[in-house]
Amino acid sequence: MSDELEIVRTVADLRQLLASWRKEGLSIGLVPTMGALHDGHFSLVEQSVQTNARTVTSLFVNPKQFGPSEDLDVYPRDEVADAAALAARGVDLLFAPAVEEMYSDGAVTAVAVPGIGDLLEGGFRPGFFTGVATVVAKLLIQSLPDRAYFGEKDYQQLCVIKRLTKDLDLPVDIVSCPIVREPDGLALSSRNAYLSAEDRQAAPALHQALIGAGYALANGAQVTSSIAAATAELLNVGFTKVDYIAVCDPTSLEQLEIVAGKARLLAAAWLGKTRLIDNIAIDV
Amino acid sequence: MSDELEIVRTVADLRQLLASWRKEGLSIGLVPTMGALHDGHFSLVEQSVQTNARTVTSLFVNPKQFGPSEDLDVYPRDEVADAAALAARGVDLLFAPAVEEMYSDGAVTAVAVPGIGDLLEGGFRPGFFTGVATVVAKLLIQSLPDRAYFGEKDYQQLCVIKRLTKDLDLPVDIVSCPIVREPDGLALSSRNAYLSAEDRQAAPALHQALIGAGYALANGAQVTSSIAAATAELLNVGFTKVDYIAVCDPTSLEQLEIVAGKARLLAAAWLGKTRLIDNIAIDV
Repeated sequence: MSDELEIVRTVADLRQLLASWRKEGLSIGLVPTMGALHDGHFSLVEQSVQTNARTVTSLFVNPKQFGPSEDLDVYPRDEVADAAALAARGVDLLFAPAVEEMYSDGAVTAVAVPGIGDLLEGGFRPGFFTGVATVVAKLLIQSLPDRAYFGEKDYQQLCVIKRLTKDLDLPVDIVSCPIVREPDGLALSSRNAYLSAEDRQAAPALHQALIGAGYALANGAQVTSSIAAATAELLNVGFTKVDYIAVCDPTSLEQLEIVAGKARLLAAAWLGKTRLIDNIAIDV
Repeated sequence: MSDELEIVRTVADLRQLLASWRKEGLSIGLVPTMGALHDGHFSLVEQSVQTNARTVTSLFVNPKQFGPSEDLDVYPRDEVADAAALAARGVDLLFAPAVEEMYSDGAVTAVAVPGIGDLLEGGFRPGFFTGVATVVAKLLIQSLPDRAYFGEKDYQQLCVIKRLTKDLDLPVDIVSCPIVREPDGLALSSRNAYLSAEDRQAAPALHQALIGAGYALANGAQVTSSIAAATAELLNVGFTKVDYIAVCDPTSLEQLEIVAGKARLLAAAWLGKTRLIDNIAIDV
């Protein structure tokens, strides 16, 4: 941990600095982000800073993981504030490349994780996980860190990244970090900034609905009725659409019909134009 | 260059040895092969041995690049002979993993190179280049060599590999090596072993047809008529089917209607059950 945050914008500069650290035998942690940093990101950063001699945070709003009707153009961006917050937390290097640096002329190569990448979010956001897998593979190859940190907020993303890291033999430990929540239970997300005051009041119901379904399952309720009750609860408090509430195997994310042991409950639902996701672990 | 050829079968053992070489500051060349080695492979090996302090050859018959009706089961294999030939040429390490080591339980991740990977061979062998790109990305990530060597015999494969290496930021120089031919012009290929005596006599016509088309183009013939003449020539000498003869941009492999400057002529054609490919460079 050093006192200054250096900012680099090219892969060549990133590699030069990382190579000098490696030569000194320093361990390296990578925290990939799309910026608009909040306490969820900072929990990843703090874990990396504690574990590794040097921490790199990447800031790249990856166009390949936004659909044509999604919020790429309005996604919140504030690099100056993000950089200051990272410096204060002991991050050593911010890698903030332009789109042209990440996807040079004629770039076409895609990393796909079929199966687990097609379920849930993958069904509602076609191409999303191919975009995520491609940029994460690139970031991991560019920096070859000892460890890379991802939040359980994007639980399916975490599963996809663990899968591709193993499948492509990337020599990095994927470290997952628990969801950070507001006092009322709402999972922190850069997209919470989109919520109106009214929607912000309704938003914690997503977490509550998952907890309610978890209790019901633990008490012997069936999967279908637990999901139906949680869906009704969300629509009742003002959610406008429920993309899915699903009870899944915690590794494969295949949907379970009967829960016996560990499972993951995952949900995606809309408050007006804002789409929120959340998940919890259960063990029945 | 050392005197002995070590053989390793796991990625962990490969990495351990490579890490020890890197620590000594030794440069590393990788020559990926599917075995059944011939002078074409040896020309790659010799170039690597000349340039790098250590040369690794991989031997892996990659099931993901064979279609269901293709020759995976009968593809020629002789590891003992291959290892002896590599040792004699100064290769330091043979990496010969089992299929289960390369594709562990539940592996699904695929590296796709759309566009250039869909043309020509990609059209006739669906999924072929995704299989090639996935295994080559894995081999490059596993070994992180300074240089990796590929033959121009598989010219489209070379273009696909250059593209994915650039797109995924793999820190390796892709070195291409010219086609090695029999005295009668037939490009060396492990699949030449399938040819009957009669087919072996007809086979050099593939190279001759490309040279003929190249001359015709240089003398002002149209692309379509040059291809038609070359196709007729092949069918006339006993080729049973011509998958394609194409005049392409040497980088994008997009087919050209008019040739002015550098181009690549590529062909695939069948002699009975054996499919041969070949290509030449032209500059009009």
